[in-house]
Amino acid sequence: MALTPYQQLEHEFQRLHALRGAISVLRWDLAVVMPPGSASQRGEQLAALEDEAHSLLISPRVSRLLERAEANQRGLEEWQLANLVQMQRDRDHALATPHSLVGRLARATVQAESAWRHARQTRDFAPCVQPLQDVVALMRDKAALVGKALALDPYDALLDEVSPGLRRADIESVFAILSQRLPGFIQDAIDKQADQPPLPLDDHIDAARRHDLAMRLLRALDFDFSQGRLDVATDASSAGLPGDMRITARLGAADPLAGVGDVLRAAGRASYAQRRDPAWRGQPVGRALGLMVDHSQGLLLEQMIGRDEPFLSFLQPLLAQAYGVTGPAWEAPNLLRRLRQVGRSLIRVDADEITQPMHGIVRYELEQALLDGKLAVRDLPAAWDGRLGDRLGTHPSDAGQSCLQDIHWARGWFGHFPAQVMGAMFAAQLNESLRVAHPTLDDELAAGQFQGMSDWLHRHVHAAANAVPLAQLVEQATGKRLSAGAWLRHVEYRYL
Amino acid sequence: MALTPYQQLEHEFQRLHALRGAISVLRWDLAVVMPPGSASQRGEQLAALEDEAHSLLISPRVSRLLERAEANQRGLEEWQLANLVQMQRDRDHALATPHSLVGRLARATVQAESAWRHARQTRDFAPCVQPLQDVVALMRDKAALVGKALALDPYDALLDEVSPGLRRADIESVFAILSQRLPGFIQDAIDKQADQPPLPLDDHIDAARRHDLAMRLLRALDFDFSQGRLDVATDASSAGLPGDMRITARLGAADPLAGVGDVLRAAGRASYAQRRDPAWRGQPVGRALGLMVDHSQGLLLEQMIGRDEPFLSFLQPLLAQAYGVTGPAWEAPNLLRRLRQVGRSLIRVDADEITQPMHGIVRYELEQALLDGKLAVRDLPAAWDGRLGDRLGTHPSDAGQSCLQDIHWARGWFGHFPAQVMGAMFAAQLNESLRVAHPTLDDELAAGQFQGMSDWLHRHVHAAANAVPLAQLVEQATGKRLSAGAWLRHVEYRYL
Repeated sequence: MALTPYQQLEHEFQRLHALRGAISVLRWDLAVVMPPGSASQRGEQLAALEDEAHSLLISPRVSRLLERAEANQRGLEEWQLANLVQMQRDRDHALATPHSLVGRLARATVQAESAWRHARQTRDFAPCVQPLQDVVALMRDKAALVGKALALDPYDALLDEVSPGLRRADIESVFAILSQRLPGFIQDAIDKQADQPPLPLDDHIDAARRHDLAMRLLRALDFDFSQGRLDVATDASSAGLPGDMRITARLGAADPLAGVGDVLRAAGRASYAQRRDPAWRGQPVGRALGLMVDHSQGLLLEQMIGRDEPFLSFLQPLLAQAYGVTGPAWEAPNLLRRLRQVGRSLIRVDADEITQPMHGIVRYELEQALLDGKLAVRDLPAAWDGRLGDRLGTHPSDAGQSCLQDIHWARGWFGHFPAQVMGAMFAAQLNESLRVAHPTLDDELAAGQFQGMSDWLHRHVHAAANAVPLAQLVEQATGKRLSAGAWLRHVEYRYL
Repeated sequence: MALTPYQQLEHEFQRLHALRGAISVLRWDLAVVMPPGSASQRGEQLAALEDEAHSLLISPRVSRLLERAEANQRGLEEWQLANLVQMQRDRDHALATPHSLVGRLARATVQAESAWRHARQTRDFAPCVQPLQDVVALMRDKAALVGKALALDPYDALLDEVSPGLRRADIESVFAILSQRLPGFIQDAIDKQADQPPLPLDDHIDAARRHDLAMRLLRALDFDFSQGRLDVATDASSAGLPGDMRITARLGAADPLAGVGDVLRAAGRASYAQRRDPAWRGQPVGRALGLMVDHSQGLLLEQMIGRDEPFLSFLQPLLAQAYGVTGPAWEAPNLLRRLRQVGRSLIRVDADEITQPMHGIVRYELEQALLDGKLAVRDLPAAWDGRLGDRLGTHPSDAGQSCLQDIHWARGWFGHFPAQVMGAMFAAQLNESLRVAHPTLDDELAAGQFQGMSDWLHRHVHAAANAVPLAQLVEQATGKRLSAGAWLRHVEYRYL
């Protein structure tokens, strides 16, 4: 029997998924494995694949099939109708992007990432300026063109690609409140904590012990090692794709707890990826509902759950066993003080829960200035240090502590920082709802049982995948629109 | 100015090169990094890319451009004319292969490789039977179809893809002599060595020391770390592509010298890859002239140079320093006895220089029987053990020591084993010519100077890349046709 237009579309999008999966592996390899001299070659490889993926989406065949599938939706299940909507959305974004831009952007981002990695080692920003300027210029063109075609503000056009449904207006209203409240919060928390500083932790825990702890944690969290792996690196990241999740944790960091946070955050995101319906895998409807939701899953586990008494009473004996440590510094109350210690960190990934959003806000302002052309890349270090200094009172000693700390823009990632801050807001809302719906949660967490939490998240977030609009998902899961309210209640309760 | 048809072809083949580079990275990742649960997903990714590469070659556009470029070759340089010939060759092989076979083969080889990796750990061949049978059936179809289209014997059709110009007839004439001479050689060498067995080497050299030695060796050999890397694994392999060479060495093996051989072999092949003209990179003419030549570059360094007095007198102090060892067992004469020790090894990669070709011959016979349908995959273990037992008197204790030792067939690699044996023959011929042309070689090697050797190889092998036919390269470099003569002289001199 001949395939229906819809079925043919599923085949086309499976192929798109395979191409994007290949791109994801090549990008992971670029970040973790590839020798630096292969950058231009990798740029060509990624350009060829991006070009192929884009060609598929803009092909007359796909548009024809979409028309025919829309005209006759009989027999399609609900998720397939949602899938059709997402297919159209993919096609519309692709049609709005000039084909030549796709390959140029692939090459430019590989060059910029490569320059950035080298610059981080030498702590000299200068060699990054031109490669990053190239990326910014291409992203500016893309924002303008996609925005025009889809009747979106240019920045919203980029945002909509990484976190569909998230808009600058939502971000602005949340950031306005945070900007107003955070400086006072931070100072108050620092003052309040001043009289009881945490005892220092022995930082000479070797890599094998840290790895052991990370593995125990991942097993407790039911991470599927047949569909993922844990690596050690100087950067924490969670990459890969469902079926092939690649966690890296900073198990060599000075802070012996850095790896714990990395693992929790990555496990939360991996759970979201691995628990979406496998039947939808490979289809647009089976993807994550964008970065904001993705980050919320990591931050809920790392910051809400992972810095609270019940989890600590589960973690403490595990940590004592894996690290072979004893004494008051390693007891739960001191660990908690460590994990909740507020400070004016220069480094976003090391920042505590309250100052981290401030890092995100500053980067949000800077990336808009870059895209608008109001800030030249060569002036980025000064602008970065100035703005962050104004808000946090920090003074970086070199570019490594300043704008070289984040690789995002070099990769062409714009909109990621605000999506992460908004993810923290959503995480706090989820945390409130989860606790109301699941009153035994704390007892379970203290016993190292994460199943109840996972099941609730699966029902309210994971299962929907990309089948509903963002605003609907937030309302269905938490009964409220997204706002800073729950997050502010959370930090007030925890820190003040 | 409009591009000429030939220039347009160069663009198309650059794109093909990018796609093949991406395939190579995905295959390396499959072997080294990928979690097992992602096998079917990886199969789809590779199928999409192989499909794309094949589509490019069989497109009417490429055939039209080839016709027009052939019709008007004015202004083309000599290497471009050679490139045009190789482009046609690529296109002809692709046209002879049905498009549907390409994707099926990609999926089947990923499944089989994945099953094979699992089976090696459990030492149970049974779960490999079906996946490997699928690969064999597809390769049989491919051999028949490509053979028919190109008027080649089916096995020669496969051989011609991995080692252009190498023919079954050449192999048979060499293997007939080896089969006749090797059994006696092996027995004589064992007898001769019996009265002076090497002193055992301390095998507790830790990984860091072995890695240190490997790095010193690679640096001495001028390996370009900006375009390559060294990893540690249980398998030795040299993968990657020019600009991105990925060496793995068995630095955890019981034999503390295993890594040395791996590094030498890989460095020889990497030198071939990295020293071909960068201006040709990305074009068919810039590739290696097939596996036989590729292996010859590794074996020349590992077996001819690397097991001789001059190199050992360079290696010995390096080894003493890196390993922190002293005593008669670690002196050059004993190391040489170790490296030249002949035995009836079950494992091809551990086999000495004389028995290793016997392993290749047995696999050559077996792979033909598999492709001809005379041997079913389920009967492979018995056939393997029987044939190898007949020739070498070996008796494996489980499948891990038997047909599970080599992953080649699971990957769809047929013709690789005989190409390696023929590579050893060519290496011996090169060694003779090199020594005649370069009488100071031994003094240079003893001083750790490899430049003279590299330059000679560059002029006589590397520089030609894929621009001349195999027979011509062999004759130009060594003044003779390829035969077993030089290799037999080499082992007679060294062992008897």
